[in-house]
Amino acid sequence: MDKAQAQTISAIRVLAAETVQRANSGHPGIALGAAPMAYALWESMTHCPKNPDFFNRDRFVLSAGHGSSLLYSLLHVFGYGVTKEDLMNFRQLRSRTPGHPEIECTPGVETSTGPLGQGVANAVGFALAESALAAKYNKDGLNIVDHYTYALCGDGCMMEGIESEAASLAGTWKLGKLIVLYDSNDISIEGNTGIAFTEDVMKRHEAQGWQVIKVNDGEDVDAIQAAIKIAKDEKNKPSLIVVRTTIGFGSPKAGSADAHGAPLGDEGVETLKKNLGYKAKPFEVTGEVFKHMAGVIDELNKSESEWNKIVKAYKAKYPEDYERFNAEIKNKPQSAEQLYNAVKPTDKVDASRSYSGMILNQLADALPNLIGGSADLAPSNKTNLKGKGDYGANDRTGRNIHFGVREHAMAAICNGVALHGGFSVFCSTFFVFTDYMKNAMRMSAIMNLPVTYILTHDSIGVGEDGPTHQPIEQLVSLRSTPNIKVFRPCDCRETAAAYVSALSGKGPTAIVCSRQNLEYFEVSEDADPLKGGYIFADSDKEVPDVILIATGSEIGVTMHAYEQLKAAGVAARVVSMPCMELFEQQTAKYRESVLPAAVRARVAVEAGSSLCWGKYVGLDGACVCMDGFGCSAPANKLFEIYGFTTENIVKVATKVLRANR
Amino acid sequence: MDKAQAQTISAIRVLAAETVQRANSGHPGIALGAAPMAYALWESMTHCPKNPDFFNRDRFVLSAGHGSSLLYSLLHVFGYGVTKEDLMNFRQLRSRTPGHPEIECTPGVETSTGPLGQGVANAVGFALAESALAAKYNKDGLNIVDHYTYALCGDGCMMEGIESEAASLAGTWKLGKLIVLYDSNDISIEGNTGIAFTEDVMKRHEAQGWQVIKVNDGEDVDAIQAAIKIAKDEKNKPSLIVVRTTIGFGSPKAGSADAHGAPLGDEGVETLKKNLGYKAKPFEVTGEVFKHMAGVIDELNKSESEWNKIVKAYKAKYPEDYERFNAEIKNKPQSAEQLYNAVKPTDKVDASRSYSGMILNQLADALPNLIGGSADLAPSNKTNLKGKGDYGANDRTGRNIHFGVREHAMAAICNGVALHGGFSVFCSTFFVFTDYMKNAMRMSAIMNLPVTYILTHDSIGVGEDGPTHQPIEQLVSLRSTPNIKVFRPCDCRETAAAYVSALSGKGPTAIVCSRQNLEYFEVSEDADPLKGGYIFADSDKEVPDVILIATGSEIGVTMHAYEQLKAAGVAARVVSMPCMELFEQQTAKYRESVLPAAVRARVAVEAGSSLCWGKYVGLDGACVCMDGFGCSAPANKLFEIYGFTTENIVKVATKVLRANR
Repeated sequence: MDKAQAQTISAIRVLAAETVQRANSGHPGIALGAAPMAYALWESMTHCPKNPDFFNRDRFVLSAGHGSSLLYSLLHVFGYGVTKEDLMNFRQLRSRTPGHPEIECTPGVETSTGPLGQGVANAVGFALAESALAAKYNKDGLNIVDHYTYALCGDGCMMEGIESEAASLAGTWKLGKLIVLYDSNDISIEGNTGIAFTEDVMKRHEAQGWQVIKVNDGEDVDAIQAAIKIAKDEKNKPSLIVVRTTIGFGSPKAGSADAHGAPLGDEGVETLKKNLGYKAKPFEVTGEVFKHMAGVIDELNKSESEWNKIVKAYKAKYPEDYERFNAEIKNKPQSAEQLYNAVKPTDKVDASRSYSGMILNQLADALPNLIGGSADLAPSNKTNLKGKGDYGANDRTGRNIHFGVREHAMAAICNGVALHGGFSVFCSTFFVFTDYMKNAMRMSAIMNLPVTYILTHDSIGVGEDGPTHQPIEQLVSLRSTPNIKVFRPCDCRETAAAYVSALSGKGPTAIVCSRQNLEYFEVSEDADPLKGGYIFADSDKEVPDVILIATGSEIGVTMHAYEQLKAAGVAARVVSMPCMELFEQQTAKYRESVLPAAVRARVAVEAGSSLCWGKYVGLDGACVCMDGFGCSAPANKLFEIYGFTTENIVKVATKVLRANR
Repeated sequence: MDKAQAQTISAIRVLAAETVQRANSGHPGIALGAAPMAYALWESMTHCPKNPDFFNRDRFVLSAGHGSSLLYSLLHVFGYGVTKEDLMNFRQLRSRTPGHPEIECTPGVETSTGPLGQGVANAVGFALAESALAAKYNKDGLNIVDHYTYALCGDGCMMEGIESEAASLAGTWKLGKLIVLYDSNDISIEGNTGIAFTEDVMKRHEAQGWQVIKVNDGEDVDAIQAAIKIAKDEKNKPSLIVVRTTIGFGSPKAGSADAHGAPLGDEGVETLKKNLGYKAKPFEVTGEVFKHMAGVIDELNKSESEWNKIVKAYKAKYPEDYERFNAEIKNKPQSAEQLYNAVKPTDKVDASRSYSGMILNQLADALPNLIGGSADLAPSNKTNLKGKGDYGANDRTGRNIHFGVREHAMAAICNGVALHGGFSVFCSTFFVFTDYMKNAMRMSAIMNLPVTYILTHDSIGVGEDGPTHQPIEQLVSLRSTPNIKVFRPCDCRETAAAYVSALSGKGPTAIVCSRQNLEYFEVSEDADPLKGGYIFADSDKEVPDVILIATGSEIGVTMHAYEQLKAAGVAARVVSMPCMELFEQQTAKYRESVLPAAVRARVAVEAGSSLCWGKYVGLDGACVCMDGFGCSAPANKLFEIYGFTTENIVKVATKVLRANR
């Protein structure tokens, strides 16, 4: 390490500490401890400050997202356009430097992080996408896709189960271009990691198929860069570089848990500068650092033009491939019309998971960049893409991904794939097990990533497997999560619409499918599931007496109740509400046409928690829902004992009608 | 292995296969593969069929809960009173043999399982509780608590991150009396585990501090029993016994993924019997098996009387300790009155997390069996029990448990502690990270376990940490989960009530606390938070013009709006709703007195998703809620920009009032 490098690392440390100090909020500990490894990496990594979106850049994920001040300081000194003022506005309203890294806010941020372990799994997704896209497009030494993926994580990430899941998959998939730097400082918030974390992390990763390299001195930039070199040279295993550091290095709180999550104080920052022998005005860098970095940045900026040469040659030789490649890496949503042309719904009586499987396969034929898989339930989820091969170390072009029983890593890996670009990605499990992966789904939602979640075995329709396998509250849980569209289709037509919405829109979509067969009903040609809620069956009266609102598998029994009410002279309407979020986006006029405010006699029918239905049935309506756990029995028995019968719905509707007369 | 043992194993296999076949639903694969190890264990384990609840029994957890037919067959042949008829009613409505094991349904079932990995973490909780209770009570060789905890798991459990978290903690805690049998058959639902699971599970567990023993032939009962002996002899490490088996052993589907989750067919069952050389009528056991098991059961039943001798001596020598012990292992809820006597609320302005910390410590002084901890956030969650020591390998009597950053295992371990008996247990993390542990919380709810969840850093009040750390939808998610009481207290009095409810009631409780300070308001003496919802402030009019319903941190701003409305001559009422679930349990008359049906002008104020408020504000009211993600900024800024201001609430209330005139 030369003096200029050392000075630059001091600059990064001091900037991060000043940033946290000014905001009076943030995490200086990791920034001070991990600055040398971060600098060492960023100096040797392939990236292009003048164009942060240059496609073939190495990806860098700060899995320990609380180290955001380190990342912003790096972005500042590496010329990404994060200014002094940005650093001074750290954690303030609408600044470019929020508390944890957010993709929409800051150039050079590859993924939003903060919840621990997610970033490592995102990085596995980046590396998977890179390997798959490279296998698909690289030809004759013209490697238009050829980059590494790096993650920086701390002890917290290493303790989370999602890290173990993701590491196990990365090892199985032999993702040789994935490199994780582990800031190992023996400290977490409650004190020394010895109280809760004595495992041998190196040995665990070796067991999970990784190359593991140790750097004993986290201040030794040359040793860190040498380790990165060894990691890059290993093509058949992901690499973990364990770097031993001191949390809060250089500050009065060095080596203590107190350094983790609170500002150092003005005096602490002064002491830090003194200890580092670093002299600059607040939020400034020294002339030496500026000059050194100008050279480094110039060098880094060349990487794009080198890639452009390869692209040019590729384009000349393979113009059609290039066109497809270029279209796919832009991750542009498909047009709804094209998608509708690709799918052929059926009116055959079947389970919506089967409709889903059929449509997914039709779409896989039409969209060569559609990939995905299940958490070891593909045969039940019906998500196998027929004839599309299995992704793995031996065939990177396979489009079926086997995630094993690892829901949480699965979803977070899909986030990484979606962020990387090049693929439209889906994943799947039993609906109840969204509870294992909720935080990763939330990250899809926060980042507005177009990940398609195929969630089968909905509600008590699961039957014999019992309450642990019967989702009751999961619909409400996902509907309350901003930015996710939740579809619960009642037939093949609605299932097709759910896929069209998922692949033509922004943000994540959950498609909730039944295990059991659904009844089929003819609907009018105007009926448009993409409105989210629409009139499924109606009376002759302009304003109905009673409105039955149902979704998914409960449309069947609701239609029977409707018919019985009709026969009794009641003007009933059935509204199918496959996607509340889309319904809410319609005009007030449209919503009024479906659910006239004047009609207070309303009944919601859904085999899930009633908690979300108050907004539609109000104080005068009623719900036929599941507000307790189910039990183990054949599904038809369960629908019967929990009141999802024609008789009960008619009874509830009649009661509501009377009360509202 | 002698012939009678072999016959008995065949009997267990055939019973399990017949059970699944008759139900036409279930999982024969694991039952056939793991029958020998299950038999070997149950023969050598300390348990007492004639009294399944005998306290000092070894605990057995079937973490691979889909193997329920194996467990029921074991319970049948081991004389637990699970009858032939019970087996024939497998997976039928209200049978004692549901699809996955459920504690309330079947004698001898220690925990409800099914979602993979949960059972291993439950077992860690059992072992922790055993070690802590033993350290607390055993004296002078009079070991009134002295048992092992066993779990049986498969490849699926091993892939889940929660297993890795739990294994890491068990190793750190050196839980020498925890023994996990791993049914390793290389098959999961999507095929050979090689496609998704190539990690070296043995080496990983060694890295996590376990003793690992391998049995190469899963048919070799003697080898399995020898391995169990070695495991029991290791006092300082948990043990993993890897048993190599064949899924679906003896059936035509042996060794294939098809054996996992579908009945064998009548012919398949016949072939199985033929291959095993086992002849008995359906659902019968041979005379030889019956005779052999009579002897085994007699022997097992002696274990209780041996323990009773120790207890008798202990009782004579330490009558007071015995009395406390006996009271504590019954897990009887505390009386609300006693709890209220133990807590001293304050009217000091503070954050509810601080109120929570104060009350928790008051309760810890009053209740010597209260233990728990945080997922590495104790200083922030304020859950440190002062002067109560740290639980660990060196001090089993410490009452602070350091879970590390492992939310999912934490909650599932607490389920195990609650199931074991002897302790009242709590755990804690940031509210947003309930998303990491939701399935374990759901298991608390399904089993109605009295686990107290202390969830701090509620809503956008988190401020600078930004959207990844600001829970928005988590209130709705937990409120929609049956059996959980969700408290969001607005002051110290309500926080105390939440704890009283948690420790005096059944089932899990979530106490959601603010990071920021809350305003203090005087309320009338009648105001009872344990009603769930109550009049916090009122007008002189008997029926108010408008009702403002608020919870937690939004009571403050709502009270200011109330005062402004009052000054403008509007008869407003403020309802505090700290716990919707308790409010719903009140009489219709009480609920009408708080929320009169005639008052349609209602506004809900809560910095969380509005999805759950429709049921209280109806079609004519309005919500001041958070239906999008927050952002990073100081909390006061966020409350302002998202409309949690006096002005906005007054504006919304006025609009609602006008519309309802």
